[in-house]
Amino acid sequence: MKIIVLNAWSSSLKFSVFQKNDSEEIVSWVVKRIWDEKGVLEYKFSWEKRIINQNFTDHTESLNQVVEVLFSEKIIADISEIESIGHRVVHGGSFFSDSVIIDKNVESRIEECIEIAPLHNPANLACIKWAEEVFNESKQVAVFDTAFHQTMPATNFMYAIPKKYYEKYWVRKYGFHGISHKYVSERLTQILAKQEERVISCHIWNWASLSAIKDWKCLNTSMWFTPVDWLVMWTRSGWIWPWVITFLQEKENLSPAQLRDVLNNHSGVLWLTGKTWDLKDIEDWIAEWNKDYEFALEMYISRIVRFLWGYIADLGWVDSIIFTAWVLENSINIRKIIATRLAFCWVVFDESKNDVRWEETLLSTPDSKVKLYLIPTNEELLIKNEVEKLV
Amino acid sequence: MKIIVLNAWSSSLKFSVFQKNDSEEIVSWVVKRIWDEKGVLEYKFSWEKRIINQNFTDHTESLNQVVEVLFSEKIIADISEIESIGHRVVHGGSFFSDSVIIDKNVESRIEECIEIAPLHNPANLACIKWAEEVFNESKQVAVFDTAFHQTMPATNFMYAIPKKYYEKYWVRKYGFHGISHKYVSERLTQILAKQEERVISCHIWNWASLSAIKDWKCLNTSMWFTPVDWLVMWTRSGWIWPWVITFLQEKENLSPAQLRDVLNNHSGVLWLTGKTWDLKDIEDWIAEWNKDYEFALEMYISRIVRFLWGYIADLGWVDSIIFTAWVLENSINIRKIIATRLAFCWVVFDESKNDVRWEETLLSTPDSKVKLYLIPTNEELLIKNEVEKLV
Repeated sequence: MKIIVLNAWSSSLKFSVFQKNDSEEIVSWVVKRIWDEKGVLEYKFSWEKRIINQNFTDHTESLNQVVEVLFSEKIIADISEIESIGHRVVHGGSFFSDSVIIDKNVESRIEECIEIAPLHNPANLACIKWAEEVFNESKQVAVFDTAFHQTMPATNFMYAIPKKYYEKYWVRKYGFHGISHKYVSERLTQILAKQEERVISCHIWNWASLSAIKDWKCLNTSMWFTPVDWLVMWTRSGWIWPWVITFLQEKENLSPAQLRDVLNNHSGVLWLTGKTWDLKDIEDWIAEWNKDYEFALEMYISRIVRFLWGYIADLGWVDSIIFTAWVLENSINIRKIIATRLAFCWVVFDESKNDVRWEETLLSTPDSKVKLYLIPTNEELLIKNEVEKLV
Repeated sequence: MKIIVLNAWSSSLKFSVFQKNDSEEIVSWVVKRIWDEKGVLEYKFSWEKRIINQNFTDHTESLNQVVEVLFSEKIIADISEIESIGHRVVHGGSFFSDSVIIDKNVESRIEECIEIAPLHNPANLACIKWAEEVFNESKQVAVFDTAFHQTMPATNFMYAIPKKYYEKYWVRKYGFHGISHKYVSERLTQILAKQEERVISCHIWNWASLSAIKDWKCLNTSMWFTPVDWLVMWTRSGWIWPWVITFLQEKENLSPAQLRDVLNNHSGVLWLTGKTWDLKDIEDWIAEWNKDYEFALEMYISRIVRFLWGYIADLGWVDSIIFTAWVLENSINIRKIIATRLAFCWVVFDESKNDVRWEETLLSTPDSKVKLYLIPTNEELLIKNEVEKLV
């Protein structure tokens, strides 16, 4: 029996197939730029990588094409081989604090959350409805990006604004990247063969967030009402004071939607460097060093470090710090800069261990009071595990 | 010879008279609720306190009344006894990194900054123009609330949004309470008879801010573009994610000005407790303990502690932490709660020293790696000292 994992974003998706009780993907497809002339479908199978260029009109069109290959490549002979399908769902609001088997009620909750996740939840819902039709005998499971953060106390998830906005519109902190934060903190427990009391996980890439985790439960996280907050990101401003927003609205006569576009798509590292760097290429970026990059890097890194220390205050101490996601999994330089700045909070960085990429590694010395771990994230594997737990 | 210090806010002011080279005020007036039927003028002189209720039409009307008393009480016999007048000016933009003697050029710069300080700079300018007329032989000095923070590096004062907004509208972090942060850090140097390398000062009252100070220069501070930021305050939200702003605008059809009113006047501790507590009364508040107060207090305090730790990251270490402004000068309870949460950052709090109000006190034990000082602020004295330096 096999399990499909569907990890859909607003204009892209990843479709992975696992054998039940096996942690390695058999095959995976990545679809990028849905709705775009430059649309592309990539898949890796039998050590071979194939790329198909196509303008997909929506998520389901690309999914249908994936299913064709599923049969033509003989990965499955019949749909009954797919026992269950796990869907990453971005926003579960305050409704879901854990993964659930999808029924009509769950679907309508996901639909309600479109209000606060207008780009992502419609895509997730489209994938769910498609899967129910095509794999109508399989169990569907929703794994929420927000669920892990539902344990935060109200003093950490509320804004200090009139309560009516929470009651009427659910305005509060939700937190995102929960699947990743959960995966790496669970992995840490397996590596150490015990549960750490106080952990900070740093998920750093084009989008970035930190989580303070106490006794395996999220205590605080840096993404709030929407996934554009605090840390400087690829094209996102991160933290900015709202007065600036109303001020700019008056000066430039920008609508709320136009302002969101500025903060979401025209800010962050993009603005700081004047170049549309994908932070996947951060090592090249460091190689092409100039003043603008230095400035951008300092803003990018100093916010990470500042907020990481803030979470030590929340936890009252930290036992382990986890580095994960592309930039920290891959960039030896960025890891070194951040780890060095943690020296005063009891991390003794072992530079001789740092020459790795995408590999689980203890980056601190054996006598370091605080352990620093590199743990590559694996959202698909966590979703698959959640599915196995429930089905 | 005497020096007048004028500390004007949007609808209130303090008028103090000093003998030159003496740090004690001879007399001071406080005017509250200018433009309001409930206007009041209080003054203390010869150990007597007098209160006059009056509806002042503007700042200058109240100032004229103060001057009448100045003569009737025989504090001065002639205007020539006033050598100079020091004005607190809220916003000096990027123009002023120090106090200056006021001339036409300085005045026009203060006027330019009305754009980014629409409530405060007009009041400061009105006081300057009034003083030039009434005390036309005295030197006028401007002491800026923003000047102390001008040493921040660009990586700390810029937002990660398109640079054009900085260039066109001066959108950046300025920082406020600079006069207070400067006063307490200078006082610390006098107390220790040496300059501490790394200091964090916490100015906590109805309005609140933190500053990270390295080698006597501000490295970072928690108030940004306007004085409503980060920390939860009396009626101010402190930190909030801008998406919430544009979201609420669309939901409630609020104008930028209406939203600023929500964040400025209907948020913060006011909302959290449902009561218009002046945080001067925070000890009563703690005595009347209930769930809402506990919640408000936790948000109020946890943000202070979290951001304080963040500044330790910025500084790379901290040598001394300073508590100042009403809440920390007066509330034994709040001091204790915050100091206890600093235990993991090397502050050994000496509770036996904590039973004080408005008194310079070392609150940490002699062997504490980080020193914790209570230093009552004195903005008027700093302004007077700045005037003496310049005139």
